[in-house]
Amino acid sequence: MTDIDDVLAKLRQFVAARDWSQFHDPKNLAMLLASEAGELVAEYRWVKGDDADAHSQRPEPRARIAAEIADVGIALLLLCDRIGLDLGQAIADKLAANEARYPPDKSRGRPDRPA
Amino acid sequence: MTDIDDVLAKLRQFVAARDWSQFHDPKNLAMLLASEAGELVAEYRWVKGDDADAHSQRPEPRARIAAEIADVGIALLLLCDRIGLDLGQAIADKLAANEARYPPDKSRGRPDRPA
Amino acid sequence: MTDIDDVLAKLRQFVAARDWSQFHDPKNLAMLLASEAGELVAEYRWVKGDDADAHSQRPEPRARIAAEIADVGIALLLLCDRIGLDLGQAIADKLAANEARYPPDKSRGRPDRPA
Amino acid sequence: MTDIDDVLAKLRQFVAARDWSQFHDPKNLAMLLASEAGELVAEYRWVKGDDADAHSQRPEPRARIAAEIADVGIALLLLCDRIGLDLGQAIADKLAANEARYPPDKSRGRPDRPA
Repeated sequence: MTDIDDVLAKLRQFVAARDWSQFHDPKNLAMLLASEAGELVAEYRWVKGDDADAHSQRPEPRARIAAEIADVGIALLLLCDRIGLDLGQAIADKLAANEARYPPDKSRGRPDRPA
Repeated sequence: MTDIDDVLAKLRQFVAARDWSQFHDPKNLAMLLASEAGELVAEYRWVKGDDADAHSQRPEPRARIAAEIADVGIALLLLCDRIGLDLGQAIADKLAANEARYPPDKSRGRPDRPA
Repeated sequence: MTDIDDVLAKLRQFVAARDWSQFHDPKNLAMLLASEAGELVAEYRWVKGDDADAHSQRPEPRARIAAEIADVGIALLLLCDRIGLDLGQAIADKLAANEARYPPDKSRGRPDRPA
Repeated sequence: MTDIDDVLAKLRQFVAARDWSQFHDPKNLAMLLASEAGELVAEYRWVKGDDADAHSQRPEPRARIAAEIADVGIALLLLCDRIGLDLGQAIADKLAANEARYPPDKSRGRPDRPA
């Protein structure tokens, strides 16, 4: 994958050149992320589940989906950068917690937490 | 930042051990992302904007916020992996498009697209 | 349908008894709504589209879905009440606008806006 | 408030004239609701909390906010109608449950559930 640290460096320059960090408190960035997640959901809301993989490969919707995913990623990186959180480490920590929370033998083929 | 490719490798193992990829069509993953974004927003909904930076550093809320950010990141990585999209490249492409869409001189200090 | 004005009167009492209106500026209520919408989406994220109607009738998920729908409705009513907006009128106005935006003959069986 | 039953009757006609009920399974409608909630959040994401009430009264943003609230309301009514749920009753039931969950004396001025 393209290195995220390089992307983050570009993102910081983009924000600095526009003096936008004044708007980027963590509360506002959480809202940005939710609104971009909403736009991503909109791309799939009328697509049948069985067709969602193929839909994601068709050039026109794929370009829109990639742009919405990027917007979500930008919001997520901005938030992590703002609060000084290492996204990769946070995910690794959560996965470790989920290993215990969802034991493979009790969770196999069941998408929700075992009772 | 902790390398995202390493995290993605762990994430794939986690999903494979539970046979969860059957649930992870792109439509469902977009919904997962939206629901996790909603949980992240919930962490900030009663926090004043002026206090949101400090709130994000207090141990108890920070742990919850980090966990919610991780869940959003997991959903985002799962979706990118499912549709074969390079997240870092997608963000770099979107930033390049945004450079043209939001000219620095017309966008400085204005968070919305210039008319 | 149970009268919404009666429900709103109860909701106002509930909020007043807890002195919660101090938290309910429109920005925070929009966040509340988004987080509740995320919880509703979570109820359907692993359900197949073909099974979503039947799922919504099964007692256990139905009770959770009804509770999440109610939470979304509460957030929506609180926001409308806060900014002095007549929800029913707003919907009627939007439907009238949509009548022009989505002409029946061009929109029949197509869920998105005609090009 | 404008009667919601009247609005629902118009909404049913709108959908029927476009043959859109085929897209409106509960899963898709939950996604519609989440995407519309995201658009509503977008209206407030750069607004300061202290200015959110005044912002909601300025004609231009108010018109957009009213339209987004209407879209959320439409999605919510479509979902309730699809699964045969009385929205007003669901809200009344949830408020009754919340009365017990958030005792006034322990919840006064505290927006989160008492520990």
